[in-house]
Formats: sequence, structure tokens, C-alpha cells
Amino acid sequence: MPPVRPRAADYRHHVAITTRWMDNDVYGHVNNVTYYSYFDTAANGYLIEHGGLDLRSSPVIGLVVESACQYHAPVAYPAALRAGLRVDRLGQRAVTYGIAIFVDGADGAAAAVAHGHFVHVFVDRATRTPVAIPPPLRAALERLVVS
Amino acid sequence: MPPVRPRAADYRHHVAITTRWMDNDVYGHVNNVTYYSYFDTAANGYLIEHGGLDLRSSPVIGLVVESACQYHAPVAYPAALRAGLRVDRLGQRAVTYGIAIFVDGADGAAAAVAHGHFVHVFVDRATRTPVAIPPPLRAALERLVVS
Amino acid sequence: MPPVRPRAADYRHHVAITTRWMDNDVYGHVNNVTYYSYFDTAANGYLIEHGGLDLRSSPVIGLVVESACQYHAPVAYPAALRAGLRVDRLGQRAVTYGIAIFVDGADGAAAAVAHGHFVHVFVDRATRTPVAIPPPLRAALERLVVS
Amino acid sequence: MPPVRPRAADYRHHVAITTRWMDNDVYGHVNNVTYYSYFDTAANGYLIEHGGLDLRSSPVIGLVVESACQYHAPVAYPAALRAGLRVDRLGQRAVTYGIAIFVDGADGAAAAVAHGHFVHVFVDRATRTPVAIPPPLRAALERLVVS
Repeated sequence: MPPVRPRAADYRHHVAITTRWMDNDVYGHVNNVTYYSYFDTAANGYLIEHGGLDLRSSPVIGLVVESACQYHAPVAYPAALRAGLRVDRLGQRAVTYGIAIFVDGADGAAAAVAHGHFVHVFVDRATRTPVAIPPPLRAALERLVVS
Repeated sequence: MPPVRPRAADYRHHVAITTRWMDNDVYGHVNNVTYYSYFDTAANGYLIEHGGLDLRSSPVIGLVVESACQYHAPVAYPAALRAGLRVDRLGQRAVTYGIAIFVDGADGAAAAVAHGHFVHVFVDRATRTPVAIPPPLRAALERLVVS
Repeated sequence: MPPVRPRAADYRHHVAITTRWMDNDVYGHVNNVTYYSYFDTAANGYLIEHGGLDLRSSPVIGLVVESACQYHAPVAYPAALRAGLRVDRLGQRAVTYGIAIFVDGADGAAAAVAHGHFVHVFVDRATRTPVAIPPPLRAALERLVVS
Repeated sequence: MPPVRPRAADYRHHVAITTRWMDNDVYGHVNNVTYYSYFDTAANGYLIEHGGLDLRSSPVIGLVVESACQYHAPVAYPAALRAGLRVDRLGQRAVTYGIAIFVDGADGAAAAVAHGHFVHVFVDRATRTPVAIPPPLRAALERLVVS
């Protein structure tokens, strides 16, 4: 049974991603590792723009404790891509993002070329111990929760 | 319940990995994405050295269709690391690698700083359709199977 | 004497570049290495779109034999950037690109945050020996020559 | 006139570098960008081990203001490499490193596969204004000066 490929319309927030020459590996397509860089970029970008996260000074930061990805179809530089972001689970101190990568320009019914998730645990920047998600970040994340 | 952290002795093959300045992200430790690069490096290196894979000319190549990682403890450049590799499942056309990252110099009882898996589906280089794993690769992979 | 910072108007072709979380290093700004990835992306993208280069099958490919960059001002993810591209020297078998990185949205008088050059020697894909630049690539490159 | 290829014996300090699957680009060899990551790794590793630099807390840090590389011969993952490091110029607030990459296991007469330089300007971490190189870093750098 082939894996289910999510659609663009399954995600709440979308971010443009330009591919790079280096994204292509020796087999001529975007390397599997690089998708996780797209994931990171989409989620943190949302936290910065909509939740007030400051990478260099916020007292609470999100650390990745788990990630996963399924790859459905190859893409290659110089393709323009788009990441779809949603929140699959929002806890007191952790959030699970659902993320999918699409070829840019595709409509809402287009199938993802890859999709996966990762979990951010929020910690105190100095002590690295888990803390409650600060209200501005939580408010931003709540807007992406899918039921 | 905290996740189980595998031990170095749980893996059959080990590969030294030198960290790089760029591996550290703005939070001062190796970025979550980079661990997947270590995974790729450990598995393909084994296929090249022990299974005769030639990245530029082998008619059958392994494409990643799924990957996942759990992160247990931070590490940072300039730490020396080691990847442990094993085969968790060996099918006709696909293999699931189990991989863990350790601080180099640790003994067999040392706990992994991260561990995960990825799945290679072997395909014809030109057509990209799945094919049976060629005998030399299969023989090499069989030696890493854990029961 | 501070180095001269080129302006956006000094470049013929411009390419949008989205930054990534991983571009920022431990000091909180885009790592010096990453600018070369922007350079590569801008030049090869132009060759693909305007000169007919096919990364996986063109019989003639460009290999980098020299590169350099001067860094004028820090930028950081999630900034949107733009690369400016021109041809500083076009020989029989080699081209020297001039490239600069700008904050996106800046006008033509805006100063580069970094600028540099790199040299592509064109070679036969199989033998890797230098060959004359094929006419479609040369025509594309000629349009970017500055005097 | 072909460029001069330095020898391993021309460098004072050597660092082992393990290549990665992702280092290879679509043309099957280590991408030109990646060499700068080796440069960064070699120089900062020396400052950390021999000069007491702490990436996360030192009040004075080195920022790259200029870099360059010449590429002499291709190398590819899974090759083991070695970086040679020296100091070509040591000023009050800046240092110019000379760096070359060798295939590991080669003797002192072996020619570099690539070589280049980069300039670190030392700045106050908070204000990012240039400052004198702190004595422990200077002492470490002086040991690598070549005349």
C-alpha cells in the first residue's frame, strides 16, 4: 500500500523555498537530508514572524527532539518549492509540527513530494530545561492547529 | 517515559565522523538536520567499501524513501563522533538501516546521543524503478542484520 | 581603506534566495561558507534557464577552479536575499562570474552585503578535459558581460 | 602557467576531515563550497584546542571578512582528507590563515587538492567592533606563522 501523500490544502501556513545547487546530490535530485532543512526553516520562520521568537536573545527556545520524513517523489534544483506547515499536537511544553514540501505553483490539490513532522520541546535558553511555551508563541501555534 | 537510548554494542559497524564548524547552529550544538547527513554517510560508506557500490556508475542505486531520528543529548563541534550501523530489516528490494551517533572514544556501553533509521529502496539508476538488491550489496547488508 | 561595496545596479541578472535556519552559524548570522552556495546557485541557475544546461545530461559542464568572497555586512535568516550576477571575463573555455549578495527589496543603489567571483572552466563531462564553451551557453554568458 | 600547488610540509598544523555523502555534488565530487567548510573547521578547531576559544561564551570572536580558494584536483566522498593550517599574516586585530586540503595518508611532499586563505577579524562578541587579538589566541596563532 503506497503511503498517503498529503495535499497543500492540508496545511495552514505556506512558505516559499528556493532550492540551491548544493541541494542536489550525486543522483541528481534534492538530497533526503535537505528536506529537514526546509522543515526547520518553515517552522522557525513562522515562530519568528508570528510568535516573536528572537534566535539570538529569546529566553525560551525550541529544541528538536524527534523528526521524521517520508519521500514521495524526487525534486531537483532549480525547482521552486513551498513548505506547508501545521500543528498536529500542541502540549504544555512541546509542539509537533506537520510539514510537507510541494512544488511551487501547484494548487491546493497538489500532492506533497515529501512530508513529515518534528517535535520542538521548549527550554530555557541558559539551563536547557523544559518550560511552558510562552504565550506569544503558543498563540501563534494555536492558529495552526488542525483537528 | 523517556526514550530508550541504544548502546554502541547494539550496532555492528562503526564509522568515525569529524564534526564541522557549520554543524553547530545558532543554539551552539549540532543541528538536528546534520544527523541525517551522518546517517547517509555511514550507510553509503559501508555500501561502497563492503558492497562494491560506485556512486557514479553502479547500475543499481539506493534511494531514501523514509527516515527518522530521535535526539537524546546535544553534541557540538569540535567533538569527534562515531556512527553505529546495523540492518534492522532486509527485504528483496529495500533495506532498513538502524543508525546511532555516539561520542567517539566511548565504550560499548555508552548511550547514543541520537538514533534513528532510514530505508533505502534499490532502483535502476536510469529508470528509477525498484529492482532486487544486487548480490554483492545483499551479502554486505546481511552481515549487519540484527535479530 | 574599506573595500568597495558594489551596488545592485552593477549586476545584470538577479535571483531571489530564501535563507534557511541552517545558514545561521553559532554567531547568529549567515555563515561565510554559505555565500558560496548562493554564488553557485545564481550562476548555474542562469546557465540552466538561459543557456540550456542540463545538470544530469549536458555533455559539457562547468567546474569551479577558483572562487573568492569579501564580506561587508552580516545578514541572518530569516532575511530574504537576492544575488546579482554578471560576467567579468569570458574566455574560450572559461568564464569569470562577478556575484554579489543583497538584502531583497533594496533598490539599485543598495550596497552588497558580500561580493566575490568564481571561475568556471567548461569540460567534457566524461573526460573532464577543457573544451570550448558551447554556443548556447556562450550566448547566454555574453548577455551578462560588463565592460 | 598552472597554479602552484602547495605541499603538506608547507603547513604547520594538520587536522583530519572525514568526507560526507552530501559533500559530493551532482558532478560526483566534493562541491567547491564544501572546501570552505573544511577551512572554517580547521582554523576554528585550532583556536578552540590551542587558543582557548569558546564558541558560546568567549568575549572575543573571529569573523570572516574575506576568503578565497583555488581547486587543483577533484576529490570525492568517501575519501579521507586532511587540512593543513598555517598563519600567513598576523596583525593586531586580524589574522590571515593559509589552508590547504590533502588526501589523507599522503606524505609531506604530496600536492594539495585545493588551497586558499581566509581572514578573521577579531571583534567584541556583543558590539561586533574590532579589538586586539587576546593573548592566548595570539600565542596560539604565533606558533603557526610562516615566514
